[in-house]
Amino acid sequence: MRMAIVGVGLIGGSLGLAMRARCTGSRVVGIGRQRGGLDAALRLGAIDEAATDLAAGVRGADLVVLAAPVRTCIALLPSVAAAVGPRTAITDVASTKAAVVAAAPPGAAFVGGHPMAGSERTGVEAATADLFAGATWVLTPAAATPAWAVERVAACAAVVGAHPVVMDAATHDRHVAAVSHLPQAVAVALAAAVPEAALPLAARGFRDMTRLAGSSAAVWNDVFATNRDNVVAMLTTMAGALGELRAAVAAGDEAAVARLFARAAAHRVEPRRDGVGGPGGGRQQGDGQGDGQGE
Amino acid sequence: MRMAIVGVGLIGGSLGLAMRARCTGSRVVGIGRQRGGLDAALRLGAIDEAATDLAAGVRGADLVVLAAPVRTCIALLPSVAAAVGPRTAITDVASTKAAVVAAAPPGAAFVGGHPMAGSERTGVEAATADLFAGATWVLTPAAATPAWAVERVAACAAVVGAHPVVMDAATHDRHVAAVSHLPQAVAVALAAAVPEAALPLAARGFRDMTRLAGSSAAVWNDVFATNRDNVVAMLTTMAGALGELRAAVAAGDEAAVARLFARAAAHRVEPRRDGVGGPGGGRQQGDGQGDGQGE
Repeated sequence: MRMAIVGVGLIGGSLGLAMRARCTGSRVVGIGRQRGGLDAALRLGAIDEAATDLAAGVRGADLVVLAAPVRTCIALLPSVAAAVGPRTAITDVASTKAAVVAAAPPGAAFVGGHPMAGSERTGVEAATADLFAGATWVLTPAAATPAWAVERVAACAAVVGAHPVVMDAATHDRHVAAVSHLPQAVAVALAAAVPEAALPLAARGFRDMTRLAGSSAAVWNDVFATNRDNVVAMLTTMAGALGELRAAVAAGDEAAVARLFARAAAHRVEPRRDGVGGPGGGRQQGDGQGDGQGE
Repeated sequence: MRMAIVGVGLIGGSLGLAMRARCTGSRVVGIGRQRGGLDAALRLGAIDEAATDLAAGVRGADLVVLAAPVRTCIALLPSVAAAVGPRTAITDVASTKAAVVAAAPPGAAFVGGHPMAGSERTGVEAATADLFAGATWVLTPAAATPAWAVERVAACAAVVGAHPVVMDAATHDRHVAAVSHLPQAVAVALAAAVPEAALPLAARGFRDMTRLAGSSAAVWNDVFATNRDNVVAMLTTMAGALGELRAAVAAGDEAAVARLFARAAAHRVEPRRDGVGGPGGGRQQGDGQGDGQGE
């Protein structure tokens, strides 16, 4: 199994570490524009070899993984498709899928992908071999995508410990607008809204609620630009829920506050615990690692 | 040092555990209405003795700590003040301070208090001796509060590992509306806003952002009722920030999105790390434990 990873940052680097740790006989080529990042990836053991030339790096790969922000993946797809043979599968790990899938050249064995794992941290220095352990890895093949390509990407996801799930790109984009892009937007709005004078009293609740506010604006502008309608719709729904709570608090309507808390508690997600549900009636989720905001 | 703790739940139980672990010669009396909770507290080592009669339990205490929701503290204050002598200090750990301070009978040696620590979990079973380690513990004495009472409560906070900070009750209530009550409200609104169908793709970001949604509506109705104007004002500010971000995303104004991210990143709070700041330029905070939503 020869894997070429284009972009060796947090996600690409973690994928390389995981493949090299879990798949004996695999060979991982890291491709990047800057020699410094590639050298760090080599030093950290995330890749076996490095290439700064895209066409040379992907040549002969069984699987090419684009591990870059959404619009970079879109820009790279034609060159990658032109550089590989017909038996090379191509996938990506970007946070939105419809725009990437639409950008795949006809005839490319392209499978859109999105591991629901990440971090507000960036760079190969933050990469870990277990980033994908237990995470859901969404695959969004198009109608024309060959089955062998889907199987190859699913096998790669499974090897690094993730659970591959196939869905259409539009459904993926709608769902992640709710559980990933909206929380990101809310974290930013919350941190921006709080006056500086109050920060010395901040504790764990505030810290957890604003951790994502450290994420890269450039990466998120890619996400928002390629999932605009869904994100705006969720921000509108969120504004409605916030307004409902504000009205209930302002009116001293404690029953309405309690109803909102009950609705909210039913939507909590507990970390996976060997098949046993967590406390509070919350749902289990696929991982304990991240929500893809880092790629 | 004889301490009487009225209400042996997460906060009261943790205080008892911490006092007994860190203050040799201290004796902790737990006071509650239900024998079951007191028996659990005895079994877990959170208290030395138990009382179901308030007046009998607080008799002879050097310090009485009301560890109950805000309006319960307000209701209990007159009975406690009537049952103790003039050399007993009284404090509380409730999440808002102006209403509690106003409810203290004239002549009582009462010091409002609020340890900035907690959890969405409740009950003495969730109590830990290190809940207050590194946390800020706000004290809000009134003009007439005797200095010895303030010193006694501050010493108690320091013994359990917290950093006592004196401020007036109105300032406290304004600040916690921003860094504690607003995050709670936002977590509830976010969890309520997300459609159920999207939850299977939820990962760490969503989980962190909605953890507080498991908190008790009854406890929070107490908080909202006694800090209404500040909470409503912060919800209005938050709605403004959210609307600003929505407008920027809808218009594809990437520079405006980046400006909001920069404003937000400047307001992040990093966990305390032996005096060394964390990455991302965020501020340090006093603890890694909670934001007081549990008391």
